[in-house]
Amino acid sequence: MSTGYDQVRPLRWENDALLMLDQRLLPAEERWLELRDAAGVAEGIRSMAVRGAPAIGIAAAYGAVLAAREAGGEWARLTSALEMLGAARPTAVNLEWALQHMRTLAEGVPPGEWGQTLLAEAHALHEADVAANRSMGQFGGALIEGGAVLTHCNTGSLATGGYGTALGVIRSAWGDGRITKVYADETRPWLQGSRLTAWELVRDGIPVSLLCEGAAASLLAGGEVSWVVVGADRIAANGDVANKIGTYGLAVLARHHGVRFMVVAPTSTIDMQTTSGADIPIEVRAEDELLSFAGKPVAAEGAGAWNPVFDVTPAGLIDAIVTEAGIVEQPDPAGMHQLFGSR
Amino acid sequence: MSTGYDQVRPLRWENDALLMLDQRLLPAEERWLELRDAAGVAEGIRSMAVRGAPAIGIAAAYGAVLAAREAGGEWARLTSALEMLGAARPTAVNLEWALQHMRTLAEGVPPGEWGQTLLAEAHALHEADVAANRSMGQFGGALIEGGAVLTHCNTGSLATGGYGTALGVIRSAWGDGRITKVYADETRPWLQGSRLTAWELVRDGIPVSLLCEGAAASLLAGGEVSWVVVGADRIAANGDVANKIGTYGLAVLARHHGVRFMVVAPTSTIDMQTTSGADIPIEVRAEDELLSFAGKPVAAEGAGAWNPVFDVTPAGLIDAIVTEAGIVEQPDPAGMHQLFGSR
Repeated sequence: MSTGYDQVRPLRWENDALLMLDQRLLPAEERWLELRDAAGVAEGIRSMAVRGAPAIGIAAAYGAVLAAREAGGEWARLTSALEMLGAARPTAVNLEWALQHMRTLAEGVPPGEWGQTLLAEAHALHEADVAANRSMGQFGGALIEGGAVLTHCNTGSLATGGYGTALGVIRSAWGDGRITKVYADETRPWLQGSRLTAWELVRDGIPVSLLCEGAAASLLAGGEVSWVVVGADRIAANGDVANKIGTYGLAVLARHHGVRFMVVAPTSTIDMQTTSGADIPIEVRAEDELLSFAGKPVAAEGAGAWNPVFDVTPAGLIDAIVTEAGIVEQPDPAGMHQLFGSR
Repeated sequence: MSTGYDQVRPLRWENDALLMLDQRLLPAEERWLELRDAAGVAEGIRSMAVRGAPAIGIAAAYGAVLAAREAGGEWARLTSALEMLGAARPTAVNLEWALQHMRTLAEGVPPGEWGQTLLAEAHALHEADVAANRSMGQFGGALIEGGAVLTHCNTGSLATGGYGTALGVIRSAWGDGRITKVYADETRPWLQGSRLTAWELVRDGIPVSLLCEGAAASLLAGGEVSWVVVGADRIAANGDVANKIGTYGLAVLARHHGVRFMVVAPTSTIDMQTTSGADIPIEVRAEDELLSFAGKPVAAEGAGAWNPVFDVTPAGLIDAIVTEAGIVEQPDPAGMHQLFGSR
């Protein structure tokens, strides 16, 4: 297993506080938020100082530690704080999963042990996430047999506990000499590709070229790209994938051009209670994210905006879903069920 | 013919001066440059205070009027000024065409009549452009039978003498009650959709919602949009279309979702000497247009960028090419030849 190309971590627990790298300021500034209560963690998640489903789940787990310490042994206060954390972002299933996990754990121990129990578990979740990402990197990287790759948004160390999902696959494939180059969509409106993915890859010494989403079709038509590699925010039981807005369009374009399409996500992203993508709620964020940039209006006053954050890619457009438990090629309900049973 | 929804002009001739709306400042500020000599017009074109091939051609025609007045009857001074105007944007075909036209006209009259002759012709070219756009608007608008439309970049009054090409079709269709709503891609990296298209439509009282290019696939999947309507920078003899980067991807997505795809451009955009889109050179602009945003770096230092300005949409993905001379449905070499012969 290649151990290089892995210099970045978005979350650290130090001196009874959660240190959260404020990703809104990257790449201009590397500032760490020092969060000492659950409300601060919820605000960090809500305001997208931390983003990316796995990183949000881990942040929430550390938030639950702070909630446990604040609860003074009162179950109602603890659950109320956990609910507040859960309400910070609506689509990310990892958030709900982590909080439910922490709640179940707290139920099993006396209130006096909540803090230490949940902290040990938050650390374990964090480490398990990095280990899972390394497994995904190996599984997914082995599918790539040359050419360049195109990725979307940020699915890297910054979006996870470390190493990344889709970007972990790219790190692994790069380390093994399986890819020639990385292309990254700039990923409007938040520019996660420009601000975060490029920042991570430059830090790890992996060459990256950014492009605007509108140029992706031309890139795929050019024949240089062998795989589009993306992450997932939620995967339904039939293999439909909710991910950052723009993913679905890439999948259609990849299929049109005979380019393969890989989704990389931990099994915690799979929601077997959700039958298909049609059942996944899609967050629509404020119009202002499109109408202004860096506090300055870019559109005429009076113009509206439609700003969905996620889209749904049907399983039929996906060549492989890569998880830490294995790969589902040409995903369908049977393949997803088999993978989920093997967890 | 509907006469409303047409409040915007990028160029006006008043009191012996060319008034040029400085599009670089939109939408924040509406400032008119008052240009009283040919050098000022050349600078306005060079600095992109005016943009859009038809608008550049008309600005150059008015610039020739000022050149004629400054020449003091000396042919060498006139031609030198016309050459200066032609060098302002060396790749714009309409610019060269308009200047050659004005030069030929001046050759046919005594120097004492240069000024009045060229002014009358500049007005005539300006009016003919608006009339052509209104014809395209009628032709293209009649193809639309309900639903919303999606457009890309700016093809409106600001890019032409007035009314616009693709946006003229949208104006016409809106005036006739044939569309419910306009969606406009923000159009990275220059944001012509946000800055210019939205500004025009708001001024005309036509509701518009902006979206980032990555959201277009979801929009088209939603079933609300019946037509994608775009302009063209050059159309090859087989109906392949070069247009702003992002157009080709929209055409693939439209076909995938059963949404129709319309290209609107004057016949002067058709280049019968270019056999197919493969022969159209694609300009690749500076990386910095992607790596910074509003003068501020957005990507990590060390990241690269791939920034093609145009892409090529194959004729097979286009349902209709609309010109002032008529419509070519399902364009192919025979259909294009027939239209061109009818000019």
